[in-house]
Amino acid sequence: MTESDYFDTRWAELLPVGRDGGSGGYRRFAWTREDHTLREWFAGECAALGLDLTLDRMGNQWAWWGNSDETPGVVIGSHLDSVPDGGAYDGPLGVVSALATVKALQDSGFHPSTPIGVVNFGDEEGARFGVACAGSRVISGAMTAERALGLTDADGVTMAQALEKAGRSTDIGADPQTLRRIGAFVELHVEQGKALALMDPATSAVAVGTDIWPHGRWRADFAGRADHAGTTALADRSDAMLDAARFALAAREAAARRDGEQRCVATVGKLDVVPGGVNAIPSHVTAWLDARSSDESLVLGVIEDLEGLFPDALREESWTPTTRFDEALTLRVRDVLGPDTPMLGTGAGHDAGILANAGVPTTMLFVRNPTGSSHTPEEFAEADDCHAGVEALTAVVRDLAGGSR
Amino acid sequence: MTESDYFDTRWAELLPVGRDGGSGGYRRFAWTREDHTLREWFAGECAALGLDLTLDRMGNQWAWWGNSDETPGVVIGSHLDSVPDGGAYDGPLGVVSALATVKALQDSGFHPSTPIGVVNFGDEEGARFGVACAGSRVISGAMTAERALGLTDADGVTMAQALEKAGRSTDIGADPQTLRRIGAFVELHVEQGKALALMDPATSAVAVGTDIWPHGRWRADFAGRADHAGTTALADRSDAMLDAARFALAAREAAARRDGEQRCVATVGKLDVVPGGVNAIPSHVTAWLDARSSDESLVLGVIEDLEGLFPDALREESWTPTTRFDEALTLRVRDVLGPDTPMLGTGAGHDAGILANAGVPTTMLFVRNPTGSSHTPEEFAEADDCHAGVEALTAVVRDLAGGSR
Repeated sequence: MTESDYFDTRWAELLPVGRDGGSGGYRRFAWTREDHTLREWFAGECAALGLDLTLDRMGNQWAWWGNSDETPGVVIGSHLDSVPDGGAYDGPLGVVSALATVKALQDSGFHPSTPIGVVNFGDEEGARFGVACAGSRVISGAMTAERALGLTDADGVTMAQALEKAGRSTDIGADPQTLRRIGAFVELHVEQGKALALMDPATSAVAVGTDIWPHGRWRADFAGRADHAGTTALADRSDAMLDAARFALAAREAAARRDGEQRCVATVGKLDVVPGGVNAIPSHVTAWLDARSSDESLVLGVIEDLEGLFPDALREESWTPTTRFDEALTLRVRDVLGPDTPMLGTGAGHDAGILANAGVPTTMLFVRNPTGSSHTPEEFAEADDCHAGVEALTAVVRDLAGGSR
Repeated sequence: MTESDYFDTRWAELLPVGRDGGSGGYRRFAWTREDHTLREWFAGECAALGLDLTLDRMGNQWAWWGNSDETPGVVIGSHLDSVPDGGAYDGPLGVVSALATVKALQDSGFHPSTPIGVVNFGDEEGARFGVACAGSRVISGAMTAERALGLTDADGVTMAQALEKAGRSTDIGADPQTLRRIGAFVELHVEQGKALALMDPATSAVAVGTDIWPHGRWRADFAGRADHAGTTALADRSDAMLDAARFALAAREAAARRDGEQRCVATVGKLDVVPGGVNAIPSHVTAWLDARSSDESLVLGVIEDLEGLFPDALREESWTPTTRFDEALTLRVRDVLGPDTPMLGTGAGHDAGILANAGVPTTMLFVRNPTGSSHTPEEFAEADDCHAGVEALTAVVRDLAGGSR
C-alpha cells in the first residue's frame, strides 16, 4: 500500500460523516454526535499507527510518537469540525495529511530524534458557540474557562452543558504543560483563496504560510421605530433597514477603495432584523461586519470611514493584529521544499495563529484550491495536490524531527 | 354606570393579557394560551349581555342579539389577537366598543328590528402562521381549508396541530351560512396613521372608512456564492447581501418618487440571509417587500421600477386591488355621524376588507390615533376618543338596526 492509498482510504472514510444530503455540505459541529464520530475515528487511526493518545484540558486530541514530556516535539494536524454547509477539506485535509505523514515516515523506517505529534483541535470553526479556535484559545489562555463555558449555541445550550452531554469534563482551562510539549507546530490546510491557482502550476501545489492577516469583527446597531408598513407615511417613519442597507454597501465600498497590491475585504454576512415582520417597519437592525487585510492600516481605514458615516453605530467585537509565523521555522520549511515554493499570507484565522500568539514556533502549509472557494461544498483540492501536500509535510517533519534515514 | 364606565372597565380587564413585561407590547397569537384567555373573556362578556354565542367553521366567535337565521343582522366587532409586540388598540378597540355599543343600546331600552351581532375574528394579524385575516379568509372561501391547515408557525407547528391542541375542530372551511347572517358589517378600528390627528381636532375623533388601499407582498431572491469572508478577494466574490441592500434602498426610493397627494409606501421588513455567518459571504438573501398606495397604478409603478433594476428577482406573494367599502352603507353611516365626519382610506388590511370582497355590505369607523403609530406599544387613542367611537358606533347601529327609540 502506497502513502497515496493510505491517504485516499482515510479520506474516503471521512466523506460521509456529517454530510447534509440536501446541500452536499458538512455539518460537523463541536461536541455533537458527528464530532464524536470523528474523534473516535481519529483515536482509532492513531492507535493503528501506534501513537499514544492524550487529551488536554479542553479535550483537544494529541497523539504522540515518542515521549514529549522529555523533549518538545514536532506537531502536525489541524481540526475535523466544519462551518454550516462547509466543505470537506477545511480541517480534515490537515488531519488526514498528518496521519499519512506519520505512516510514510514509519514505513520508510524513519527514527525521529524528537517526538512527533498529531493534533485534532476541537471547535476550530466556532460554528456552534460563535468563537473560532475555541480549543486552542482555551489551552493557550487566550479565552478564559469562564467565558468558554458560558458561550451558548443557537438553542441556548451552553458550552458547559454541551461538554457534559458529550461526557467531557467542564474543568477546562489553560494548559501550559500541553503547550510545552510543542517544539514546533506545522498546520497543513487547504488554501481558502485562489492565489496558488493563479501561479505557475508547476510549483504551486503547496505554499508555505507567512502570516495571518489582521482581522476584526464589528457589530453595527441601527435604531428605527416600529410602525405599520402599510399605514405609516414615508415622512413619518424611521426605518432601520435603510441604514443597515447603506452600511452593507458602504462597507464594501470602503474595502474596494483600498483593495489592491495589499488586499482588503469587508463583508456583512449576518443581519438581525427586529421585529422582522413583512408588514412591520424595522425598529432595529444589527449588522455584523467582518473586515480583514494584508495591511493593518487598511482595515482600520475601513472602520474609520464607517464610523464617520454611521456615528456611534459600531462596536468592536474582536480585533487581531497581524500574526506573523515564526520566521526561522518558516524559512527552514521553505528551504526543505525548495526555493520556488510560494510564500502566502492568509485572511483566515487558524489554531496555528492562536499557538503563534502564545509563543509556540509555528508555521503553515497551504494546498492549492482550484475553485478558491472556502466554507462551501465547492471547496476543493485535486488528489494529486493532496498527495503533494503529504509529501511536503513528510519532508518537513523528516527535517524538523531530525532523525535518521 | 355610564357607557364610558362599561368601556373603561372592560378595557382595563384586557390590558394585562398577553402583555410582554419587557417591551410593554402584546403577544396575543392565534390558538395560544393568551388567545384562549381572550376568547373566554369575550364569551363571558357576551353571556353577561344576554347574547347567543356561536362559532363558525373557523372558530370565529359570533354573539347575537336576535335571531339572525331569520333576518340578516348588523354586525360590529373586530379581533383580539396582536402582532409581536403590538399595541393594545389594534383589534380590541373594535371588540370592546362593540360590546359597549350593545350595552348602551340595551340600557337605552332600544328594541332592534333586525338582529345585532358582535364578532371576534380569530387570527386577524397572521402573526403566527403568516397569513393575515385567516379567520375571515377561510369562512369566506378566500383561503382553502387545505392551505390554512398546512400553514406552519416558527416552530414548525401546523395550523391543524395548533387547532387540535386548542381543542378546536380541524373540519374548517367556507361557511356561507354564517356570511348570510351578516346584513351589514361595521368594523371600528384605531387609525393606523396620523391623518385624523392632523385634521381639525373638533371633528376628527372618528372617521368613516372608504376603502382599503391596493396592497401587495413580493418576495425578492438574490443569489450569491458562499465563500469565506476573509480569504475571498472582492473581485472573486458574489455577495447576495449587496443586491439585497440595493433592493431595500431602491424600493424606498421608488415609493418616495411617487408619494404625494396620493400616498405610496414600500417597505422591506424581513430578510433571510443564508448561511448567515459573520465570516461567510451570503450565498442567498431573500427580501420581502410590502408595497401599498391609495392609487393602484403607483404600487404597480414601484414594482415595475424594481423589476427593471432587478430582473427575475421578484415573485408576487399576494396582490389585493383597491377594496371599496359599500357605497350606500358608507354614505348612510356618514349621514348618521354628520357631514363634517372625515372619510378615510386605509393602507392596512382588515377582516372588513375580506368580507367586502366576499360581497358583504361593509364599512369601517376609524378612531383618531395621536401617535400615528401602529403595531407597536406606542399605538394609542385618547379615552375621550374611544368613548366618541362607542357613541358613533351606537348611533350607527341604532340607525342600521332600525328599531324603536
